[in-house]
Amino acid sequence: MKVKINGTMEEYRTVWMTDSVIYMINQPKLPACFQIYGSDNHRKTAKSIKDMIVRGAPAIGATGAFGITQAAIEFKGDDFSCFLRHMEEAKKTLKDARPTAYDLFYAIDKMSEEIDKTSSIKEAISLLQEASLNYANESTERCRLIGVNGEKLIRDSSRILTHCNAGALGCVDYGTALAPIRIANDNGKKPFVFVDETRPRCQGSRLTAWELIQEDISHSIIVDNAAGYLMRKGEIDLVIVGADRITSNGDVINKIGTYEKAVLAKENNIPFYVAAPKSTFDYNSKTGDETEIEERSEDEVLYMWGIDSDNRLNNVRIAPKESKARNPAFDVTPAKYISKIITEEGIYNPQEIPTKH
Amino acid sequence: MKVKINGTMEEYRTVWMTDSVIYMINQPKLPACFQIYGSDNHRKTAKSIKDMIVRGAPAIGATGAFGITQAAIEFKGDDFSCFLRHMEEAKKTLKDARPTAYDLFYAIDKMSEEIDKTSSIKEAISLLQEASLNYANESTERCRLIGVNGEKLIRDSSRILTHCNAGALGCVDYGTALAPIRIANDNGKKPFVFVDETRPRCQGSRLTAWELIQEDISHSIIVDNAAGYLMRKGEIDLVIVGADRITSNGDVINKIGTYEKAVLAKENNIPFYVAAPKSTFDYNSKTGDETEIEERSEDEVLYMWGIDSDNRLNNVRIAPKESKARNPAFDVTPAKYISKIITEEGIYNPQEIPTKH
Repeated sequence: MKVKINGTMEEYRTVWMTDSVIYMINQPKLPACFQIYGSDNHRKTAKSIKDMIVRGAPAIGATGAFGITQAAIEFKGDDFSCFLRHMEEAKKTLKDARPTAYDLFYAIDKMSEEIDKTSSIKEAISLLQEASLNYANESTERCRLIGVNGEKLIRDSSRILTHCNAGALGCVDYGTALAPIRIANDNGKKPFVFVDETRPRCQGSRLTAWELIQEDISHSIIVDNAAGYLMRKGEIDLVIVGADRITSNGDVINKIGTYEKAVLAKENNIPFYVAAPKSTFDYNSKTGDETEIEERSEDEVLYMWGIDSDNRLNNVRIAPKESKARNPAFDVTPAKYISKIITEEGIYNPQEIPTKH
Repeated sequence: MKVKINGTMEEYRTVWMTDSVIYMINQPKLPACFQIYGSDNHRKTAKSIKDMIVRGAPAIGATGAFGITQAAIEFKGDDFSCFLRHMEEAKKTLKDARPTAYDLFYAIDKMSEEIDKTSSIKEAISLLQEASLNYANESTERCRLIGVNGEKLIRDSSRILTHCNAGALGCVDYGTALAPIRIANDNGKKPFVFVDETRPRCQGSRLTAWELIQEDISHSIIVDNAAGYLMRKGEIDLVIVGADRITSNGDVINKIGTYEKAVLAKENNIPFYVAAPKSTFDYNSKTGDETEIEERSEDEVLYMWGIDSDNRLNNVRIAPKESKARNPAFDVTPAKYISKIITEEGIYNPQEIPTKH
């Protein structure tokens, strides 16, 4: 993705690995400052997923793949069964970091297959290095193809609502929901984006807006409460969001608030598109309601991150000190509210999603 | 309303007038600190409405009534036609402070009728003093009756969603949406309240939560995005909100996001109640879509007020400095999404609202 740094444009990926260190764009620091975070062991990598230094299903998937490779490199010793035990623990540590993102499990299971191919630690490391790099490259290519496919759904000057950040920052590059918008913009279609701020963590106003600025795409931030109003006024032509998990029946698990926007879009006859790679499909779950929904710390609701006059991020309380909060991080959008699912292989009705990876 | 101050309980109204000074609870300072703001002239009073030191339709109405009285007291001279011109200007200044709240227009027009009764400035002042005090007292009584009527819709341990602040702080006392909850709690029904934080100004997490603490009513703050999730999970039994304006056909104009919650409630078969005094009814408008919707400063979206470690309110930016925002302050909820309208005179279907004041 393009990043404007001191007036020049540089190319970055959200996450990458060099030797045994995993580097990632430090997302809680955005939009105040652009900073790279380096993790030198898989436990720190799991914590960086948990703390959302890296977030977004495809980005977490790639980080998980690199994390497995990192865990293999970390192993000291030459006993292969000890190595396997170490790797099982590492898989658990990394999978536990975010229970909802299916991409994370998918990527880790893919890496497991590499380990199964050999009984040599050295070869396992080498296979994992190659496989995790391929995973990141293929993930990027899948997002690019999602963009190419989804771009066809965007007309000249389409006014598009998006929720949360399903952009390059949520992937290795390109994004899922933002990929079609990015490509439509490159093709001169001049899309306009309404960016839901996406409380509590404001991935919309902090990250999606930041990405759109890098790409010079016109946008307005709105509070999550305003999306329905704009839909009813006829100011939104289509909605595109990402997905953390899509179950066999086409239900979509995504950032809290997605369900609200989908119901409102249907009520106002506005197409509601979900853009996601096939790695997001969870064929083991029949419906979205089988998925465990992560409830995060109430402090995300009771406090707000903000940028002070010195361009530093500060945490300020926005509720009475006696108040409690509930903080479900995701919700389930039943398939009936979804117009189409845009994947790297094509565009599907939610009831007819492709049946294998 | 009860206010806990240093361990003791004191009784307050949101707005009151003593001699020529209008006093109001300084709402932007809440919940960090409880402070009274005094305005000694009607222009300052209009500004206090515009700046939302006082907010909520019934509270703005009473403030408008007091503001007219204040403008009359301010007048220097003895020419009655000059007085009338001065009063016309004052009416305009006060009405212009918030274009959407119908109560404000209603209260000011009520005060006008008093001026029409006399051709003596002294008598006009005296009539206005009595009428504005009566207006505030009657407004309080209307809210109490809304509470008594609405309480019947609440069962033991009902889990109630409310949006924005339609509590005592939005009225002279009692509140509209919160009045039934307050009375249900007094009657031992133990209601539980989910408080929508209500971005952008967070009247829910700042004001409604603060009021519920004063009354010892159990509650959880949620981000606006989470209401639909909780409805779908069956964790919300009913919704009660206030109204800034109700048009002849039963459409409700209220805080941005109300429309979203109403659509979601209907989709999930949850009753959606609007609690408002009859002064909120705008018989001059056939439908809600005729109402001008105020768009407020984009800074309300791009910045967030928070309480720092010294218990001071600070403004922090939560979006990239290059980003713009849209900030509609209200929306229109069509009558078809509303189960009942709770007034001081009884409970009505939105299609059958009472036809005169």
